[in-house]
Amino acid sequence: MVFGSQLIQCVRNVAAVAWEPGKPLVMEEVEVAPPQAMEVRLKILFTSLCHTDVYFWEAKGQTPLFPRIFGHEAGGIVESVGEGVTDLIPGDHVLPVFTGECKECRHCKSEESNMCDLLRINTDRGVMLNDGKSRFSIKGKPIYHFVGTSTFSEYTVVHVGCVAKINPAAPLDKVCILSCGISTGLGATLNVAKPKRGSTVAIFGLGAVGLAAAEGARIAGASRIIGVDLNSKRFDEAKKFGVTEFVNPKDHDKPVQEVIAEMTGGGVDRSVECTGSVNAMISAFECVHDGWGVAVLVGVPNKDDAFKTHPMNLLNEKTLKGTFFGNYKPRSDLPAVVEKYMNKELELEKFITHEVSFSEINKAFEYMLKGDSLRCIIRMDA
Amino acid sequence: MVFGSQLIQCVRNVAAVAWEPGKPLVMEEVEVAPPQAMEVRLKILFTSLCHTDVYFWEAKGQTPLFPRIFGHEAGGIVESVGEGVTDLIPGDHVLPVFTGECKECRHCKSEESNMCDLLRINTDRGVMLNDGKSRFSIKGKPIYHFVGTSTFSEYTVVHVGCVAKINPAAPLDKVCILSCGISTGLGATLNVAKPKRGSTVAIFGLGAVGLAAAEGARIAGASRIIGVDLNSKRFDEAKKFGVTEFVNPKDHDKPVQEVIAEMTGGGVDRSVECTGSVNAMISAFECVHDGWGVAVLVGVPNKDDAFKTHPMNLLNEKTLKGTFFGNYKPRSDLPAVVEKYMNKELELEKFITHEVSFSEINKAFEYMLKGDSLRCIIRMDA
Repeated sequence: MVFGSQLIQCVRNVAAVAWEPGKPLVMEEVEVAPPQAMEVRLKILFTSLCHTDVYFWEAKGQTPLFPRIFGHEAGGIVESVGEGVTDLIPGDHVLPVFTGECKECRHCKSEESNMCDLLRINTDRGVMLNDGKSRFSIKGKPIYHFVGTSTFSEYTVVHVGCVAKINPAAPLDKVCILSCGISTGLGATLNVAKPKRGSTVAIFGLGAVGLAAAEGARIAGASRIIGVDLNSKRFDEAKKFGVTEFVNPKDHDKPVQEVIAEMTGGGVDRSVECTGSVNAMISAFECVHDGWGVAVLVGVPNKDDAFKTHPMNLLNEKTLKGTFFGNYKPRSDLPAVVEKYMNKELELEKFITHEVSFSEINKAFEYMLKGDSLRCIIRMDA
Repeated sequence: MVFGSQLIQCVRNVAAVAWEPGKPLVMEEVEVAPPQAMEVRLKILFTSLCHTDVYFWEAKGQTPLFPRIFGHEAGGIVESVGEGVTDLIPGDHVLPVFTGECKECRHCKSEESNMCDLLRINTDRGVMLNDGKSRFSIKGKPIYHFVGTSTFSEYTVVHVGCVAKINPAAPLDKVCILSCGISTGLGATLNVAKPKRGSTVAIFGLGAVGLAAAEGARIAGASRIIGVDLNSKRFDEAKKFGVTEFVNPKDHDKPVQEVIAEMTGGGVDRSVECTGSVNAMISAFECVHDGWGVAVLVGVPNKDDAFKTHPMNLLNEKTLKGTFFGNYKPRSDLPAVVEKYMNKELELEKFITHEVSFSEINKAFEYMLKGDSLRCIIRMDA
């Protein structure tokens, strides 16, 4: 394929292929087709594992789509670009993102939304938008994409709207984790809950997303950050993220929202829910102070869950909001999040608990399944 | 009682007393005691009837408290002031309000809340805060107050925190309706939903509060205002309030939120729920657009209602808020609402459908129970 003066060919590379739900990934030689119109091919340098990869790899609830190449948190370099791509060139340092920003639709043009009509996350689609085909194949047999990123591969093809160009001085082995979970939690607090300096914030769920929400509260200058988790072992680690107090609902006979109301003279100013449990969502909403409290839901619920509360809780001037990817628009907003790390406002190192070589990728799954890791960096060159 | 150089005595006046639930009010000669510390005695010139009066007069759900003097939308003049009252003097034109603003508590000091800790509405209390006693009596027998206002009386005693001092040039027979329902609907839109110019707004319930919410949307410059009501007769009148389109849920086989989504390409930008029906609340929430939609709940639900929705509606970046008295702080904010009427931005005349003399007050109840009236002004001097 010839585009301009550039000859773009298929590349053969190694990818970690999921052949079946829940079975270890297999390192395979995979052919990666050239980027089509509005697509870019990236050389992935670092990727990390997020719960969402594990969730769709386990395929317990959703339509299984296999063989598939998972992976959606990563940092890489543009290797080649397809027709019509004008704002990226080979060599650019980028973060691929599982949801996109076309810059044309009503959502992209809205100041409030990041739910792009064209490139909003689609977990059921295993092909590229452009032609409905996969760019990955093994001996001619297509391998499905995952959320448009498929970063468990040395090379991958991504729609240009799902690529954030970042400061080339930023270390990709650190900022790669901003592709998904960390930005989701951070943005939930900074962009949606927006706690004022000196306020009280409750964080439900102290996994990586919840700790990123806590990090957001720390950056915003919250005076009290109350961490809520069913696993008290997480409390020690959470202190590093600014969490000042802990509540394990199991230690109390009354609902956790009542415990928090008693601790805070009527409720917290802001809460952020990062578990996806509908009961935690209800508690997170009901634990905010009347008059001004804002609860933000981040965790993804089960299909049949119902959020239930007495409407008087709303008439008492509490606000309930949800967020998707921390309300960040990937292309417009992620570069500034990277800068927050570069200027030492945002601390990323503490999220990175493990590191493995690409060939050991299944270990990253084991760490996460055991609940041992926050983020495990997978080095593609090792 | 001597306060300063002023001799304040009991006044004898006529009040409309509710002796029993649901029975016509009876005009009685009632003694009104002098205002105590932080209280003022008002001469009421005009009062109007609001659903909340009728609701507590019917006493179908709540603890009945009788004999009682109802009434909470009114305009009057300060007749005398109790000890410690420094910001009102006899002769001031005022609106008494069913909820107050102490200016000292966390809510009053918050920019966001109007739910004063000291003077927040209390429908169960029939006495004054100061001494737990009533200021009304007939031959020594106390008559209960209602929400601290009891404006169905030529004179009444009100806590100073529940009195908004307004422009003396404002006609009290018009601005008296700003004491409750109209400000509630107007503020729900202007202060809480905050539609941008050109946006689409759905209003659930086209009674006085809903039409005031529509009036707010008109003032804000909404391009489409969709009125939703089970009674199609209301649609004609609603046009005067800027409503451009109508949906009667009874005319459709599908949920009204789906009808509205189809009319608007995915949902309205803002919705305001003014019925109190929990199903309308759910529809009002689900009919806003993902990414940026805001639903505001105004109507007061039944005690055992549960608001239920799939949490994914929230994760799609819809916001759910409630409001109380349109988020207006009575003393700080109502004077400016009166000015909106004075400068012709806000139209009040169209809310006033009936007028009766004080002695005919039971007619006002009949109009409301028949659903004929928006607001019926009761002239105290007639």
